[in-house]
Amino acid sequence: MKTVSENTCFGGTQGVYTHASEVCGVDMTFGLFLPAEAQDGPVPVLWYLSGLTCTHENAMVKAGAQGWAAEQGIALVFPDTSPRGEGVANDDAYDLGQGAGFYVNATQSPWAPHFRMWDYIATELPALIGETFAVDMDRQAITGHSMGGHGALTLAMSLPGRFRSVSAFSPICNPTNSDWGRKQFTAYLGADEAAWAAHDASLLMAERGFDGPVLVDTGTKDQFLDLLRPETLAHAMTARRQEGTFRMQKGYDHSYFFISTFMEDHVTFHAEALYAD
Amino acid sequence: MKTVSENTCFGGTQGVYTHASEVCGVDMTFGLFLPAEAQDGPVPVLWYLSGLTCTHENAMVKAGAQGWAAEQGIALVFPDTSPRGEGVANDDAYDLGQGAGFYVNATQSPWAPHFRMWDYIATELPALIGETFAVDMDRQAITGHSMGGHGALTLAMSLPGRFRSVSAFSPICNPTNSDWGRKQFTAYLGADEAAWAAHDASLLMAERGFDGPVLVDTGTKDQFLDLLRPETLAHAMTARRQEGTFRMQKGYDHSYFFISTFMEDHVTFHAEALYAD
Repeated sequence: MKTVSENTCFGGTQGVYTHASEVCGVDMTFGLFLPAEAQDGPVPVLWYLSGLTCTHENAMVKAGAQGWAAEQGIALVFPDTSPRGEGVANDDAYDLGQGAGFYVNATQSPWAPHFRMWDYIATELPALIGETFAVDMDRQAITGHSMGGHGALTLAMSLPGRFRSVSAFSPICNPTNSDWGRKQFTAYLGADEAAWAAHDASLLMAERGFDGPVLVDTGTKDQFLDLLRPETLAHAMTARRQEGTFRMQKGYDHSYFFISTFMEDHVTFHAEALYAD
Repeated sequence: MKTVSENTCFGGTQGVYTHASEVCGVDMTFGLFLPAEAQDGPVPVLWYLSGLTCTHENAMVKAGAQGWAAEQGIALVFPDTSPRGEGVANDDAYDLGQGAGFYVNATQSPWAPHFRMWDYIATELPALIGETFAVDMDRQAITGHSMGGHGALTLAMSLPGRFRSVSAFSPICNPTNSDWGRKQFTAYLGADEAAWAAHDASLLMAERGFDGPVLVDTGTKDQFLDLLRPETLAHAMTARRQEGTFRMQKGYDHSYFFISTFMEDHVTFHAEALYAD
């Protein structure tokens, strides 16, 4: 693992690191914020999964999460959204290939060898972080935006006991019925839709739910509401009697101006779960 | 004036606007955050002047200022750092020409016709904003980062009565004795150093000071300390008995991770002055 940069930030350290990923077969980059408390021992950690076109950097510089994480003594992980670089397949579209890993393990050519973001986020990166940094892997929570909200919700529901709480900002809620999903699942997972259901937050919510609190925020002026389909997740959460809060925030759109506005709420929400006995 | 974008943000609106600048002779772009209170009447305003290479956008998306401004009911203006576009002179260096206006009115060729950032910030843009938006131009404060800290300090001291308070993040404090200054002043103002003194915060502080509170933050690990020369401003402030606070923040560097960490302090500082009787 190599240190790309470390900046003092809100009394802690905002680092950027690269490592040779076995799972993805390329070097991967991630951001990690450690609050001052990490100098004295392992701290809880909140994962932030980013959306289409993003790298590890977008949320790290625009979401305003570090201040609230510092206040709560919580670490933040900002993974990349796909493998990248020469030799990694790509597509001219912004929503397929590099920057658009969709948090699945691709089984189809040309994506299969490198696009294994599910295993990367679920297995390889947490192992590396747990071994390397003062982070308490028994106290994890997860959030994300858009495609990253989809990733946060599907990972949280598919790895019972891993995360104490899950939240999402304007998540892709029902990708098996959306152009943000069908195109990518066809490319990465193949035409057999049976393989897609494991990666649809609304279907997973209907089938198994999440053993802990859920918080979802979406803007009423989000320009992608037809693609996000929040109503399917709201229905599934409510029909299941899932513990949680589903909010439509008046006037907000899909941007980081929306995310930063409600970041305090989300970090506070996760802190309550992470510090519960 | 044209609206480029408007995003709901912390209950208010983060807008981006362009207008034909008479002073600069080109279209200029700026960001303006209006808190919710602006719907009910004019609100106080804090100017944020950015540093080298920045546009109106950097601080708008990375400084985390809107949340604190919303809490205080204060508007934020994010001007660009120079004129831009075809027909505007430029230089290959990052620290001269477009993105590096240094908040002066250039008198030298090829910069003179467009590079008039002093008049733009001191006269044209405040007039436009006062006419167009619910902003109370009798309650203004100013801050900035690096080159923008230099701009904030020099404008505040040179326009007595205009700003109630001034602050700066890692400002260029003594440009007449720095490679961040001598090169640019020579290019924009000419070789006669007599014309430079009006744009040196340390010299202005020694000569006239500021009629109000001053707050300056600089990181002890700032990679540009030799160029910023904070010691000259600290000396001038103290020798003058200037009301103010000069802080060296342990471990912080020149980045937006530093700025965002102390943004709450700066907005709160200005709010006290802006809401004083």
